[in-house]
Amino acid sequence: MTPDQLICDAIRAICRDKQPAGLYEPITYVLEAGGKRLRPLLTLIAAEMYGTEWQKVLPAALAIEVFHNFTLMHDDVMDKAPIRRGKPTVHVRWNTNTAILSGDQMLIEAYKQLAQLPADKLPRVLQMFNEMATGICEGQQYDVDFETATKVTIDDYIHMIRLKTSVLLATALKTGAYMADAPEEEQELLYDYGINIGLAFQLQDDILDVYGNPATFGKAVGGDIIENKKTYMYLTALQQADDATLQELQRWFDTKEEYQPQEKIEAVRAIYTQLGIKGICEEVMRKYTEQAFAILDKIKLPAEKKLILRELGEHLLARKE
Amino acid sequence: MTPDQLICDAIRAICRDKQPAGLYEPITYVLEAGGKRLRPLLTLIAAEMYGTEWQKVLPAALAIEVFHNFTLMHDDVMDKAPIRRGKPTVHVRWNTNTAILSGDQMLIEAYKQLAQLPADKLPRVLQMFNEMATGICEGQQYDVDFETATKVTIDDYIHMIRLKTSVLLATALKTGAYMADAPEEEQELLYDYGINIGLAFQLQDDILDVYGNPATFGKAVGGDIIENKKTYMYLTALQQADDATLQELQRWFDTKEEYQPQEKIEAVRAIYTQLGIKGICEEVMRKYTEQAFAILDKIKLPAEKKLILRELGEHLLARKE
Repeated sequence: MTPDQLICDAIRAICRDKQPAGLYEPITYVLEAGGKRLRPLLTLIAAEMYGTEWQKVLPAALAIEVFHNFTLMHDDVMDKAPIRRGKPTVHVRWNTNTAILSGDQMLIEAYKQLAQLPADKLPRVLQMFNEMATGICEGQQYDVDFETATKVTIDDYIHMIRLKTSVLLATALKTGAYMADAPEEEQELLYDYGINIGLAFQLQDDILDVYGNPATFGKAVGGDIIENKKTYMYLTALQQADDATLQELQRWFDTKEEYQPQEKIEAVRAIYTQLGIKGICEEVMRKYTEQAFAILDKIKLPAEKKLILRELGEHLLARKE
Repeated sequence: MTPDQLICDAIRAICRDKQPAGLYEPITYVLEAGGKRLRPLLTLIAAEMYGTEWQKVLPAALAIEVFHNFTLMHDDVMDKAPIRRGKPTVHVRWNTNTAILSGDQMLIEAYKQLAQLPADKLPRVLQMFNEMATGICEGQQYDVDFETATKVTIDDYIHMIRLKTSVLLATALKTGAYMADAPEEEQELLYDYGINIGLAFQLQDDILDVYGNPATFGKAVGGDIIENKKTYMYLTALQQADDATLQELQRWFDTKEEYQPQEKIEAVRAIYTQLGIKGICEEVMRKYTEQAFAILDKIKLPAEKKLILRELGEHLLARKE
């Protein structure tokens, strides 16, 4: 059995035959919509690197995957996102109340998975999980704050996406390593690897939000622009623009104005293209990727044990559309 | 220090100095709005009955109180409730997204409290807590389902409020008893006491929703009627009404019709009064209360140890408005 199959089978079992259907069907809908299963895979991979079999860390891996999908369900409500993984979001297919309540149950389900871990591992895993979960809520709040903040620095933005995206990947890896009794400093190295890969991954997502192919991106292209998200693309453009372009860009991001979505997306994309923002962001993305691989080099395991994480990193960051 | 002070001080410390303010201020707003602190008190009382000091079970008590307030924050969004404990609800004072995200963080905070428990007690407490939390989500979903269901029996309704209200009180007591190493059968008796007191308490709430004093009820009087909630009052009225009254009542609860709220509340209240529904519900409430006290009698502790729970039950159910 591949790790992917193991995860998918276990995911399918979570809501099987549970009542009331109104609570559990939206959870199944989201959990079975697919996605990369990247985060639980990271937990299984980290455990295997230190000689612990997948099955032993499966509840921790599932907790992380269910939690991730919970955040998507609630984020989509808050962002009014219509599409996720090519399907209508839960608040569109059902309604907002359903997305709130079924999301809450998913968060609880994540903790139910953790409760299945061996008693000696539970306290520390629960603590790591809680820190991660709080980090993600804080990151989401910063994301919301930034939409209306007048001054957001690139450092602020990196801090926000670190919390919102990276901490989950980092915790997925560290949890697997901890469960497998890896040396503490190597647990930390894997955490840092996750942080850096996560930052690179989020920057790629920022680029694809502007330049992605609607047929393969999964989400609506231009969503960040419509939501006035101050992404790495936008913040870099502010730095690069001359006065006239700056004013034009800020006018498009003026939250008091209403524009036709497509018109706004195309205008902002044209500004980014003219300023060469994509190339700059790709360079920073590369920097974080290299940092991640440098951290991987420090882990004192045979190279072939680490190969899968390197390949996964390369594969993740090769999304061109 | 009284147990109430102990709880309030600990509650105040939860969000102190935490950033971002947009995430934590609404949590403080709700947690410090007061409320009876009934649930954490039950945990402390149960622990003390079996000779364990309050401080030792405080994290479990706080987890339950924070969780309870999380459910209120999200329920108020779903019910579009304007007022809670005499103050504007979070989605009114801030907005819906804030109520969703700060609520999520509260749920996580509850688990952070649990993570502070001694390692030997954690697995079982976590499992009890998870079961309770899932029960409450399921109860909330049944509550939503019943608003549009054509046929809801009184048994269905009792099952729903058991999940939505009683399980939390029952788990609060059982957790305290478990933490204090009470005999397993006495943990169960305390659980059942909580279930019965909870049912009586919810029936009282149903009565007060119709006949309560707006100045002291905390919530908007008539909220259940406006939301077409099929409460014990309503379901009993369906049983008691003659054909003409039945049709009138059902017309007021027809979800497709829009009425002036005050007009609807007064009309429905008049029907209930005419049918003597309040007296019938009070009788059932008394039945559950007596059942609770009969269970308390079975606990093999000196009467003075159990006195506080009897008094608390009597006090709780003495709310006349």
